[in-house]
Amino acid sequence: MLIVGEKINTSRKSVKEAVEKRDAEFIKNLAKEQAESGADYIDVNCGTFINDEPEIMEWMVKEIQTAVDNPLCIDSPSPNAIEAGLKHHKNGQAMVNSISGEKERYDAIKPLVTKYGCKIISLCMDDDGIPKDAKKRFDCAKAVIDGLKEEGVKEDDIYIDPLIQPISTDTKNGPSVLETITSIHEYYDEVHTMCGLSNVSYGLPNRKILNQTFMIMCMTVGLDGVILDPTDKKMMAQFTSAKSLLDKDKFCKDYLKAHRKGILEV
Amino acid sequence: MLIVGEKINTSRKSVKEAVEKRDAEFIKNLAKEQAESGADYIDVNCGTFINDEPEIMEWMVKEIQTAVDNPLCIDSPSPNAIEAGLKHHKNGQAMVNSISGEKERYDAIKPLVTKYGCKIISLCMDDDGIPKDAKKRFDCAKAVIDGLKEEGVKEDDIYIDPLIQPISTDTKNGPSVLETITSIHEYYDEVHTMCGLSNVSYGLPNRKILNQTFMIMCMTVGLDGVILDPTDKKMMAQFTSAKSLLDKDKFCKDYLKAHRKGILEV
Repeated sequence: MLIVGEKINTSRKSVKEAVEKRDAEFIKNLAKEQAESGADYIDVNCGTFINDEPEIMEWMVKEIQTAVDNPLCIDSPSPNAIEAGLKHHKNGQAMVNSISGEKERYDAIKPLVTKYGCKIISLCMDDDGIPKDAKKRFDCAKAVIDGLKEEGVKEDDIYIDPLIQPISTDTKNGPSVLETITSIHEYYDEVHTMCGLSNVSYGLPNRKILNQTFMIMCMTVGLDGVILDPTDKKMMAQFTSAKSLLDKDKFCKDYLKAHRKGILEV
Repeated sequence: MLIVGEKINTSRKSVKEAVEKRDAEFIKNLAKEQAESGADYIDVNCGTFINDEPEIMEWMVKEIQTAVDNPLCIDSPSPNAIEAGLKHHKNGQAMVNSISGEKERYDAIKPLVTKYGCKIISLCMDDDGIPKDAKKRFDCAKAVIDGLKEEGVKEDDIYIDPLIQPISTDTKNGPSVLETITSIHEYYDEVHTMCGLSNVSYGLPNRKILNQTFMIMCMTVGLDGVILDPTDKKMMAQFTSAKSLLDKDKFCKDYLKAHRKGILEV
């Protein structure tokens, strides 16, 4: 079970301001607090800086690695920004978020995956957009997985993001994601699945309870990576209890450790 | 999705004392608050009164029906206590908790199910006890389901309780229940599954978070009935959000209603 800490993203106002002032301490503290809260990877996203995204990515990647030993998840649709991050990544095996079945994006990102040997997140979409039904999403995922495998990428380095859509627009969007995750784990032995949760609750009140509940549902059908805020204690308590209940925490060791730290009482 | 309110159970001290004093108001209020909180059925269990269980069952069933219109779940292993309850049940179709594959119990309860046309909960166990693995639990369930069907009982009136065991003794107990629920819904079109949750967390701290999380997991794989305390706001908030995410709440109507009532902010 992988946790990617999502907080270093310039779409958040405080991060954007810190980057504008090149306030490295702010960014480094965000990395540290996520690492201490249990993040395996630290996501780095500066996609709002359209004109100088590669330079800012390089600066962030360098600074963050002075603060934590965790590998980073270079998060951008831009091949230039991704390569700027990968070039300066020293903390083990990097992860890239994301490739997809869109031809232009696929052709541009694929060579970076093989060149740098990183883990790669692939979105369940292609040039026709995000398919509504689970069968077509699986087909999107399969096209990219099979293509990457032909280039020598290992299944174990591939993470499929089923692309959660809001249930406020269509309540079928919940089951559709659960079926996509199920089908990928049924078909591939070692491919992983990974996603952010918050989109599911877009447009509805009390979003946190929907996000938490949907995380548990996705884990139940096989999701083994999650992009979240690891400093959100309630979310982490649910994650920890879900791991124990799915027999992914022998003797409930992590659960009992979390209890002793007092982070389950939320 | 059926909710059975579990609070009227003489293993709870306050209920036991109320029954000893024949304090009907206390029992009736417990029924009312559960009905108002969303219970479909009200469970009635006086199993701690071994010597006069049938008389007490009759008294409770009569009193509760003066307070609520909900049908009751007559909860006992004793055929005499069950019949005492069923004889005086007037609020629609009663439910009985429970039959099982144990020969003596099966032979004694089956005639009551056909005589009174009630819904019936069947436990996944037989004279060899509770099987460890999901395949054998399914076999236990199948033996009872097929036997009841031969007597004319409809699949839709049968609820299988997979019998949750504590993960503190074996973390495989979580997946085993999830597989049992999955297999029953795959094999039978109309048979339901139903269970209480709290046993899963026995022996561990912070039990509520494990119970809530496991309820969501069971619902994800098809559980469509749950025995719980409907006045537990957190549990009910999770239940309501899970229904929406599983496309069992068109347009998120119940979710939005719960939000307007302020019962999701927990």
